[in-house]
Amino acid sequence: MTTRYDVLGIGNAIVDVIARAEDDFLIRHGMQKGSMVLVDEARAAAIYDLMGPATEISGGSAANTIVGVASFGARAAFVGRICDDSLGRIFTHDIRAVGVAFDQPPASKGPSTGRCYIIVTPDGERTMNTYLGAAQQLGPEDIDADMVAASAITYLEGYLWDPRDAKDAFLKAAAVAHDAHRLVALSLSDAFCVDRWRDEFLGLLRDRTVDLLFANEAELHSLYQTADFDSAISALRQVARLAVVTRSEKGCVVVSADTVQTVPAFAVERVIDTTGAGDLFAAGFLFGLSRSTDHATAARLGALAAAEVIGHLGARPSVSLKSLAQENGLLV
Amino acid sequence: MTTRYDVLGIGNAIVDVIARAEDDFLIRHGMQKGSMVLVDEARAAAIYDLMGPATEISGGSAANTIVGVASFGARAAFVGRICDDSLGRIFTHDIRAVGVAFDQPPASKGPSTGRCYIIVTPDGERTMNTYLGAAQQLGPEDIDADMVAASAITYLEGYLWDPRDAKDAFLKAAAVAHDAHRLVALSLSDAFCVDRWRDEFLGLLRDRTVDLLFANEAELHSLYQTADFDSAISALRQVARLAVVTRSEKGCVVVSADTVQTVPAFAVERVIDTTGAGDLFAAGFLFGLSRSTDHATAARLGALAAAEVIGHLGARPSVSLKSLAQENGLLV
Repeated sequence: MTTRYDVLGIGNAIVDVIARAEDDFLIRHGMQKGSMVLVDEARAAAIYDLMGPATEISGGSAANTIVGVASFGARAAFVGRICDDSLGRIFTHDIRAVGVAFDQPPASKGPSTGRCYIIVTPDGERTMNTYLGAAQQLGPEDIDADMVAASAITYLEGYLWDPRDAKDAFLKAAAVAHDAHRLVALSLSDAFCVDRWRDEFLGLLRDRTVDLLFANEAELHSLYQTADFDSAISALRQVARLAVVTRSEKGCVVVSADTVQTVPAFAVERVIDTTGAGDLFAAGFLFGLSRSTDHATAARLGALAAAEVIGHLGARPSVSLKSLAQENGLLV
Repeated sequence: MTTRYDVLGIGNAIVDVIARAEDDFLIRHGMQKGSMVLVDEARAAAIYDLMGPATEISGGSAANTIVGVASFGARAAFVGRICDDSLGRIFTHDIRAVGVAFDQPPASKGPSTGRCYIIVTPDGERTMNTYLGAAQQLGPEDIDADMVAASAITYLEGYLWDPRDAKDAFLKAAAVAHDAHRLVALSLSDAFCVDRWRDEFLGLLRDRTVDLLFANEAELHSLYQTADFDSAISALRQVARLAVVTRSEKGCVVVSADTVQTVPAFAVERVIDTTGAGDLFAAGFLFGLSRSTDHATAARLGALAAAEVIGHLGARPSVSLKSLAQENGLLV
């Protein structure tokens, strides 16, 4: 069957609210550097009050990935819940503006569009406080089976385990995708998310709900509760059909049952904001798969997109990734 | 009488919606590069639809200036109208986060908070389409006479001539300021604004409603309808108590009845986005005046702030201007 989309992403629809601060800001306000913490509306308001002048840029982990996929030139779609408010309109505009199909009707009542309050410290590291808002309302009724069946890859973020009914949406989408002989990919999202949902994520790998796993080193260590990289990789090989573990400037490792392949990162002149590095790596890898490149080339496409996004504020590409890939000889 | 604020700004409260585009985007959509055009809500929506993924950063000409004044370490306040919506809350947060007093109650009904849709071309030039929204509602009732009388300088943007009742707010503030023996400063805002309101702006200078005028070269030429810089400066000297004319990389000219002084610009490594250059120049100059520096030093402070803001996206400083001035030996 022909496909309508190369990659369909399902995730929390979020607008990032980004401000710079020194490290002591995090210490003073009890924030753990590099973490993503879920906050309620009152805590979100309190954090916003503490933050300096901010910049608003559309975000959301899977949404960032899907925007990256579209920026490479692939056919992409996104499913996530927003509210009918200014931030919801901003999210909708920004994702559609790169050609992503996003047709979720905004909620006319209930919580406002989700926000992620991001503190970027001078080293470029980001510390995130997420108010899920309308994203909480994602459920299985939002999954259009025809759309999933018509997508070569369905890409899901681990963060979907946090809202109440989103995991049901996730499982429905995965089942539909497999019935249609499509691929299901999962990003582990972050080490704290893995800590919250470890057993369920291990279950998704074991029962082959997930065909392709994206994780960074910290997430992998959290998944297998080990500080030893090699033993974590060994454990992963037992269950994952295909997995990519990113290791920042050390590049990444592409893991399958029979091979472990190391692929280098791209050099980055200056790290401005690491937000979205993992999301954009996934974008490049997924794009590569959609073009049937070998895994090493897909990983280089991922590394290229990750390098682009950490060179500026915000988690969405600031240039055409298609052009960037062509300039770097990764795409003709 | 002692003062409560060094500078009080009155202007249109605006959130900037910024996207990059190639020059042909402007040509294709009939936009004149470097201009600021007022648009209604329908046109604003149409322009937004055409734009690529955008970044939202608080703006507004006088508001940018006042944020700059506060960033230098002076006591600053702002008056402008917002609506009780997400963008209004963003505007309020960002201006208060740098310590500016901003206590205007948001409108609970009527038009939404004003937006400026800004296209930044590869040369860093910005082309602006402004939907004034709630800023339209600024009127003389918004001017707190005690606040104006307690401010050493009241700073007004020429753009206040565009909304219906804002010029009455402007004139009330100027009258109160002068009754309290305070200074009144005006920025001509942009050449197209001068074209719309030339006679009234000339009147403000002639009848000494304005003590200090900020203009760039294009605005000055528009004011006196001449392409000759020297004759425009001569005309200006006849009426202005004090005026500063900025000339981009050529620096600025400080003009009074008896002297014309040229002050150089700061070198800028790479122009990213010129939005806010004039606003931040005014911030530095006003800050200098508030610290009783000589005019040349005030102009250097202005040049420094302008150089900072054109080095990144958005019209608000991304670092502490106080620290920057100290690093450059302009402030102890």
